[in-house]
Amino acid sequence: MTPPAQPGRLPTVRTVASLAGVSRQTVSNVLNFPERVGPKLQERVHAAIEELGYRPSAIARSLALQSTGLIAYRVGKSRGYEDQSLDPFMRELSRIGKDHHYRLVLQYAAEDDSSQITEYEDLYARRAMDAVVITESHPLDARVDWLKAHEVPFVAYGRPWGDPQPSHSWVDLDVEAGQRAATEHLIANGHRRIAYLGLPLDGARASAHRDGWAQAMGRLVPEQPLAGLEYLGSAEETSGLVARALEDAGATGFVCNHDGYADAALHALWAAGRTPGRDVAVVGFGNSRRARRAYPPLSSITQSVEHIAELVWSSLLDQLGGTGAPPLQELLAPDLAIRESSDFVLPS
Amino acid sequence: MTPPAQPGRLPTVRTVASLAGVSRQTVSNVLNFPERVGPKLQERVHAAIEELGYRPSAIARSLALQSTGLIAYRVGKSRGYEDQSLDPFMRELSRIGKDHHYRLVLQYAAEDDSSQITEYEDLYARRAMDAVVITESHPLDARVDWLKAHEVPFVAYGRPWGDPQPSHSWVDLDVEAGQRAATEHLIANGHRRIAYLGLPLDGARASAHRDGWAQAMGRLVPEQPLAGLEYLGSAEETSGLVARALEDAGATGFVCNHDGYADAALHALWAAGRTPGRDVAVVGFGNSRRARRAYPPLSSITQSVEHIAELVWSSLLDQLGGTGAPPLQELLAPDLAIRESSDFVLPS
Repeated sequence: MTPPAQPGRLPTVRTVASLAGVSRQTVSNVLNFPERVGPKLQERVHAAIEELGYRPSAIARSLALQSTGLIAYRVGKSRGYEDQSLDPFMRELSRIGKDHHYRLVLQYAAEDDSSQITEYEDLYARRAMDAVVITESHPLDARVDWLKAHEVPFVAYGRPWGDPQPSHSWVDLDVEAGQRAATEHLIANGHRRIAYLGLPLDGARASAHRDGWAQAMGRLVPEQPLAGLEYLGSAEETSGLVARALEDAGATGFVCNHDGYADAALHALWAAGRTPGRDVAVVGFGNSRRARRAYPPLSSITQSVEHIAELVWSSLLDQLGGTGAPPLQELLAPDLAIRESSDFVLPS
Repeated sequence: MTPPAQPGRLPTVRTVASLAGVSRQTVSNVLNFPERVGPKLQERVHAAIEELGYRPSAIARSLALQSTGLIAYRVGKSRGYEDQSLDPFMRELSRIGKDHHYRLVLQYAAEDDSSQITEYEDLYARRAMDAVVITESHPLDARVDWLKAHEVPFVAYGRPWGDPQPSHSWVDLDVEAGQRAATEHLIANGHRRIAYLGLPLDGARASAHRDGWAQAMGRLVPEQPLAGLEYLGSAEETSGLVARALEDAGATGFVCNHDGYADAALHALWAAGRTPGRDVAVVGFGNSRRARRAYPPLSSITQSVEHIAELVWSSLLDQLGGTGAPPLQELLAPDLAIRESSDFVLPS
């Protein structure tokens, strides 16, 4: 293969056109707008392309199509640290994108809207992105406003919190429903003093987790006051929170904001001389590999990142192709995978 | 801001040149090769750029420079699953790249060399990458040969296994030295029956981990046969392996291939009625957040992904800038962070 320093040696649209005996415009149409070209001409051009081993330069193609084949996706700190919980989603986006000749380009940016919008402005001004996938949606999301105003195709992973009539594409998990199901599962197994273990309620999503637990408790065990059963803190504080829930509230069950908290709770229970899966129940969220490998294996509220990524791509492709399909707006019901950490009836 | 459908409305090199009263070539030089332009001319051009709000199109710039500002990085399955252990490294590469106006583009590909080379061929033919960072180097690495043959700047995270005279840039951790240090630490605390818990030895890297343990054992406790102390398997098998090491070999200490194995070992020890950090010692590898949050907190062999990513970038920038600096070839000595999981003398 010829090195990039001698690009003139690579076959070009001109040499393809010459061999096929057609105009350069026809070659360009075959590559970019095949529906404008009859089947016989298409065949001639493709034969010439194959014979010459021609591959369109991404840059030249980009100029013609105003397309770079790149989908922007943010990485960076969230809540003060490099949060890896969405990395499986990013990997699925990347995997599916490959089938459609798109690649993810990582925009490293801080968590606040304006840092991310600065990245969009740069990528947009340079015409270096075709679409965006945003994560961690929140009320008054300025990124959504910017992307809509600039007509950049995008999908949000996260519902349009606080926006009653959203016009953009989004997909999200019904986390309340998931935490309700987890709490109901523990209540059905005889638990009453079920603690909620999670992030501080500084975002709509964290609150939704907590609300699902509170809804199930309020409906099924209304006599149980919730005040002493809410344990909120950072992941580092989990051990102390679990110890307090056991001592102060006599908790026998834990529903958790995510698998990391649930796994930390298992560690803390062993340390306190308890036997998770026999005298204390724990349910996580996310159904990660970590949940399946914990001891005992963790029950967890499941989200299929594959399915979510597929939905995101179907909407991106609709938008990129200008099909005029209505926006994706879907709240997915999560399932509960029941494993040893909670699959027992509380001894009375 | 003007939407992409009307690119003609955006300021161009021509309008900048006209306002500054210079040639378009001068504007291009100020943008791409400022060392060729005197300070006064630079000032005039920058004043015009600011007044017009001109931002060079990535595509036009790419055509001028044959540069896309993109560094290719592979994601995809390793050993059959989506291995996230290198994601912190990827994030650091992304973070540092931002400072130098580069972004990571993810190439989704299978683990074998030829799948990855197919991606390189595509990106190369489209001139859509400036450099590559490869991970998981291995003996007879065909990616290295391809990248050298095509003169694509690259750095390997992973030493050139089996290549006595490598000419390319690489950085790696001295994992043997790390596992030696972990094993010596346990021996110094009174342990003799120290088990190695890790991946099957199907790669040079996995073998290097195991060899570090075997070297320390052979030197300091040569009377201890190693045969019954080697526990190799997948992460799912960890619980069973730990139980066997306790029962069959009477192991009192574990050195582990990575923190995930060590964390699983802690779970298995609690489940077996043991007290890690008091009667059994465990040391992990990677010094991840998971190690710090485990109960008890895990001793771990530390690798600074920040430092590694900085070294990678210094070499990439040397190569991209054509400085002629010698290749990066550095084997880094890891440190051992001692925490509660191993910081005790074995009761005799």
